[in-house]
This record gives sequence, C-alpha cells and structure tokens, in this order.
Amino acid sequence: MQDRNEPDDPCSALTPDAQALVREVLARLVDKWGLWVLSELSENGPLRFSRLLERVRGVSQKSLTATLRQLERDGLVTRTMVVQVPIRVDYAVTPLGRSLVEQVQPLWLWAIARLPEFVAARAAYDANVNRRQVP
Amino acid sequence: MQDRNEPDDPCSALTPDAQALVREVLARLVDKWGLWVLSELSENGPLRFSRLLERVRGVSQKSLTATLRQLERDGLVTRTMVVQVPIRVDYAVTPLGRSLVEQVQPLWLWAIARLPEFVAARAAYDANVNRRQVP
Repeated sequence: MQDRNEPDDPCSALTPDAQALVREVLARLVDKWGLWVLSELSENGPLRFSRLLERVRGVSQKSLTATLRQLERDGLVTRTMVVQVPIRVDYAVTPLGRSLVEQVQPLWLWAIARLPEFVAARAAYDANVNRRQVP
Repeated sequence: MQDRNEPDDPCSALTPDAQALVREVLARLVDKWGLWVLSELSENGPLRFSRLLERVRGVSQKSLTATLRQLERDGLVTRTMVVQVPIRVDYAVTPLGRSLVEQVQPLWLWAIARLPEFVAARAAYDANVNRRQVP
C-alpha cells in the first residue's frame, strides 16, 4: 500500500527553516491583532501610532507595539519617523503587506461563511467526547 | 480626521466569540502538522492512524493524535472505527476540510513565492534593531 514516498504537503519542497518561516508569517495573520492592523494600514494608512490605537478598538498600547514590530520585522509594515515637534512616527503598509491582505481575505471570508459548520462540529464533538478512545 | 467609526477589519461584523473561533480554525492550518495531515487525507484518504504516521514524516504519535483530535473537533476530519480484528480506525477528510485545503492553498503558495522577501526583511530588521526607539 505504500506506493508513494513523497507527501503531498505543498511545502514539502522547502527546507524545515523555510517551512517554519512560512508558518510564522501566516501565524501573524491569525494573531489577535495582526490582520486588523494590516487591514487598517492597507485601507487608511499611513497612520500614526495614536490613530491606529483608536481605530483598532480594544487593542492595548503594549499589544499594538508588539504587533507593529512583528509586522515590521516581516516586511509587511514600514515605520517612518517624521522630524517635527513632537516627533511623529508613521506606520504604512508595504506592497508585500498589501498583497498579503489581498491573499488572506478570501480565506477569511470563507471561514466566516462556514462558521456555523465549525460551531456545530465543536458542539457535536464536545457532546460525544466521553465515548472516545485512543486511536 | 476621525471621519469613520467603523474599522475595516473583515470580521468586524462578528461577535468576539465568533472572531475567536475563526482565528482558532485558521490557526490550526499553521500548526506544525494541521495542514499537512489535512492535505494527506484530502489526497490519499481515508487513512489509518499508522498510515498517516508514516506519511506525515517526522510527526510523533502524540502530536498526530492531538492534531487529529483538533481537526475532528473542528469538523474537518472524521474518525470511523471499523469493527474487525484488530479494530481499525480510519480518518477521512470532510467536505468542509477539503474546502479548507482548497482555500488555503493559494495563500500558502503565495507565502512560499514571497519567502525571499520575508527573509530579507527579517535580516534587515534584525540588523537595525539596536537603533530602534519606542513609538
């Protein structure tokens, strides 16, 4: 039955390091704030830190700082200091970041559309969890 | 400047609980094994546990068990016990799971194609990290 040795994982041609990086970048999107911040900057940017803090409702200053640093590190957002009094720092989406927002939107909308199925699956699973055995 | 009160987050119409669930489901894809297991089952399933363990190279029995339970709980995979000696347990992808694999593939391929840009961004960021200030 073992007719094939190669897995069909779409990232099977990548090195483990490269795979880990792809996962990390995509993981940023499902972080609590990553996609929201990126969407704001994509549609309304560039924005100052304080403006982002208002728009991304519920985010703390600390979380927004951490989110922006991760997005900047991944090349999705730029941070520009404008020399004036007081000093202003603008955040803007990069072409790479804009492309990512465009890529992820269909998946996100799909997940929202199928949400009732996920909710039902979880309810059914949790109701039956007691009958389960180890594989 | 605050001309709009509504954020442009595509999930802004969802309740916080629903948003969290969407995030959790999508997070499963970037788990170390989730998408690989789902892809295997999508292309070669149904498969027994032992067969999956062979195909998803490097996964431990413990991780595979945990991955399958999460996927089953989210309605992406079914688990069927076949009464024979010894008892056999088959795992198969659901239509929802197959749809998810199809949805995520373009994003994954995009991330792989843009990988050099992510690598370059990180190298540049890390090289300059010492000059950074708080926002």
